[in-house]
Amino acid sequence: MLDVKDIQLFSDERIDEIPGGAKLIQSDECFSYGIDAVLLARFSKVKRNAKCLDLGTGNGIIPVLMSSVYKNNEFHGIEIQEKPYSMAIRSAIINEIDQRIFFHKCDVKNPWEDISKNSFMTVTTNPPYMLKGTGNIHNTDEKAIARHEILASLDDFCSTASLALNSGGSFYIIHRANRLNDLVSCLIKNSLHPKNYVFIHPSSNKCATMVMIESTKGGNAACNVLRPVIVYDELGNYTEQINEIYKGNYNFL
Amino acid sequence: MLDVKDIQLFSDERIDEIPGGAKLIQSDECFSYGIDAVLLARFSKVKRNAKCLDLGTGNGIIPVLMSSVYKNNEFHGIEIQEKPYSMAIRSAIINEIDQRIFFHKCDVKNPWEDISKNSFMTVTTNPPYMLKGTGNIHNTDEKAIARHEILASLDDFCSTASLALNSGGSFYIIHRANRLNDLVSCLIKNSLHPKNYVFIHPSSNKCATMVMIESTKGGNAACNVLRPVIVYDELGNYTEQINEIYKGNYNFL
Repeated sequence: MLDVKDIQLFSDERIDEIPGGAKLIQSDECFSYGIDAVLLARFSKVKRNAKCLDLGTGNGIIPVLMSSVYKNNEFHGIEIQEKPYSMAIRSAIINEIDQRIFFHKCDVKNPWEDISKNSFMTVTTNPPYMLKGTGNIHNTDEKAIARHEILASLDDFCSTASLALNSGGSFYIIHRANRLNDLVSCLIKNSLHPKNYVFIHPSSNKCATMVMIESTKGGNAACNVLRPVIVYDELGNYTEQINEIYKGNYNFL
Repeated sequence: MLDVKDIQLFSDERIDEIPGGAKLIQSDECFSYGIDAVLLARFSKVKRNAKCLDLGTGNGIIPVLMSSVYKNNEFHGIEIQEKPYSMAIRSAIINEIDQRIFFHKCDVKNPWEDISKNSFMTVTTNPPYMLKGTGNIHNTDEKAIARHEILASLDDFCSTASLALNSGGSFYIIHRANRLNDLVSCLIKNSLHPKNYVFIHPSSNKCATMVMIESTKGGNAACNVLRPVIVYDELGNYTEQINEIYKGNYNFL
């Protein structure tokens, strides 16, 4: 087993401190985490002793963020790309959480050799936001794969989430607000019933750019639209709400 | 044809002045209009020369409100209950708009003897909010029929809206935010693709109580979540946003 002192960084890599104090290996060559990962990690809840799975985990930002809040839970993340997968594995070792955080290099569309169906109470995902074929991109580029639905579609993410969850388990997703129609359709089609919605607006007089949805596997149709999250105040600074979310002090409900 | 001076009021009826200056016959025995009707009327747009239809129009509040903004358009409203239908007819005469506002006493589920399919560019509705069988109600009560899905379901309203609209026409609906899942499913199922969402929160730190959705018949899946509408400020007074909406000065986009 690798030890912290054995961890090597490639020349393009750096170690960033993330909210909550954990460390994360990042690289300019790969997709680096943004506010959306922090929002999703803070919004997502894990029950005592339950296991949590992150789909398309990239460099592992979401399970690493959550593992410093939920200190006794087991986290899994799947990632198809070698480079971010390797960074995630090494970040787990650096944070000395590799006894309870496991990364699997596999496809979101068919991860069943690596993880078991019906075995998680929480599944999270910050999937690629953009439809395949939109924008001018190279399909082999790591950042493009993180941003566009090249290797897996929204439906693939929802379908795998539903199969991985126990009945009554929770699925947390963050996505572009302008994909809301697709999102609701995909979730319901996969027996993931939206329970709580949070819309994220850059300022109080602008359209939402992102939406987070907590869904229940096999839940019923009633739902709540929680108070909106506003990112910037009139001066262009983060709002108190965002500062509290970063600190882990915010209650979305 | 009845003239304004021939209009008689029953003993339970009164004439209220509504935002925009028009008059509306209301009765304590029937459902009286609330903020939701004003929000929906202000949110709904009608193209030049296009016809507008309101489903389950009650005392006609929505077409009467809209007719004082859109002074050259033709409005239709359908209502199954005799009492509010009669009040709507007489309100049109009082406001001297009965040459371009027409009420039909018919069923939302099958209005096709009274109105034509594929003939409206705007359809509006403020339907019953509550599911049939919820709460303790008398199914023959006029107010209960206005509030509960006794005589027509959400799907009936969406289905008729879709059939009444021309291709590319717009459907505007206001509903309880906790029915969002049902709403999105029903709209999409009936080829009404949500284009703009507005969530209405009683205050900035509370869950949304209502949602308005503008859908396009045969539109595509992209959508906008517009800035939230906040009803009350910290002192419990209407916000400037609500005051501007009542005055007709607010741009939701």
